[in-house]
Amino acid sequence: MHDMKAVVLLSGGIDSATTCAVARDAGYDVYALSFFYNQRHHMEIRAARRLADSFQVSRHIIINLPSLIFSSSALIKGSPEEIPQKEISDPSDIPVTYVPGRNILFLSYALSYAENIAARDIFIGANCVDYSGYPDCRPAFIEAFEQMANLGTKSGVTGNRIRIRAPLIMMKKSEIITLGTELGVDYGMTLSCYNPSGEGLSCGRCDSCVIRKAGFAEAGIPDPTRYRAE
Amino acid sequence: MHDMKAVVLLSGGIDSATTCAVARDAGYDVYALSFFYNQRHHMEIRAARRLADSFQVSRHIIINLPSLIFSSSALIKGSPEEIPQKEISDPSDIPVTYVPGRNILFLSYALSYAENIAARDIFIGANCVDYSGYPDCRPAFIEAFEQMANLGTKSGVTGNRIRIRAPLIMMKKSEIITLGTELGVDYGMTLSCYNPSGEGLSCGRCDSCVIRKAGFAEAGIPDPTRYRAE
Repeated sequence: MHDMKAVVLLSGGIDSATTCAVARDAGYDVYALSFFYNQRHHMEIRAARRLADSFQVSRHIIINLPSLIFSSSALIKGSPEEIPQKEISDPSDIPVTYVPGRNILFLSYALSYAENIAARDIFIGANCVDYSGYPDCRPAFIEAFEQMANLGTKSGVTGNRIRIRAPLIMMKKSEIITLGTELGVDYGMTLSCYNPSGEGLSCGRCDSCVIRKAGFAEAGIPDPTRYRAE
Repeated sequence: MHDMKAVVLLSGGIDSATTCAVARDAGYDVYALSFFYNQRHHMEIRAARRLADSFQVSRHIIINLPSLIFSSSALIKGSPEEIPQKEISDPSDIPVTYVPGRNILFLSYALSYAENIAARDIFIGANCVDYSGYPDCRPAFIEAFEQMANLGTKSGVTGNRIRIRAPLIMMKKSEIITLGTELGVDYGMTLSCYNPSGEGLSCGRCDSCVIRKAGFAEAGIPDPTRYRAE
């Protein structure tokens, strides 16, 4: 038996939508957290809202972060860096779309909120297979965060271990899409593009779009994404 | 040689003021972070502002946290828990003033901000000697956070190790006060009370006041705190 509440980080992309479906399928009441941080692709927040509704989460909280915290990343509006418009970056490099300490901050919020509502399970859609360039998406990081969390919280030191669940961490994008489709995720609600148009149409060219397209193709599942005409 | 920038968590109390003085004394340019989270003792933010001015920090940022994140703690306004008005709690218990995952969230903000401004050193006034009840003030936690931070950030994985500095962690309150006095800290600017009056006068009775008073007495240094008349 597990406690029935889980905190789920819900960004509005394929991975977090699938993760939310996994948590729901496992019987958890979902408390979803999304973050607004002046990201170029802030329309993902709208996608997160649609997904939270469709998953009938118990609560969906959108947290505003001060934009200066992350301002050096290409993903932040006004950053001097540009979003790459090319094939997938070399996965041995850390891409310019890296956001400093993002998953650490997101997980820390999830952790405080989890303790506050007496939840012990935190779900994150981190994934290191198709795109291993982000240090905060690797299993060693997730394990280190969990260990730290259990040393630094009342839950942890009183024996109610906090669990950081990253069910997709070793899955390929096509496997994630297959799993989510089985669980009834409507990927037409999700947004992956780093540079969407004002109408929410995807560019089809950024790393994130390229990986998404290839994932649907490999899974043999029709891609519901609305790409903009060039 | 170290990089010349440090991020310092500055709450407005004795420990963070002394930590800030230690960082300044070591030659760092200080980037201070303070947090507003609907704490009962939000006047500590005013104290943090005064301290930041007196230390001539390079930048002082006050971050608003959504109050629901911490709302179960007695330190939060509107919490059903009351601030204890008695002698120091049994240090083997976790006090009701524990705030879920607070130092984890504060350090995570400091970490993102540090990466963003290319700083590698983060200072926190955590201390486990006089008051060991908070799990997020122990050396094992600080070490685990540093390890996690270096696995989950670009800085860490590219060899620019992040260092979490907790210079007071093994010091008694009286030793902290002696050190800060040597470094020129004006403790009259600081606020420790969990339950100050609207004019910023300390109650003299909460755990935090009791520890503070005893620290000045043991250090043999006059206590500049303004206590309210009973």
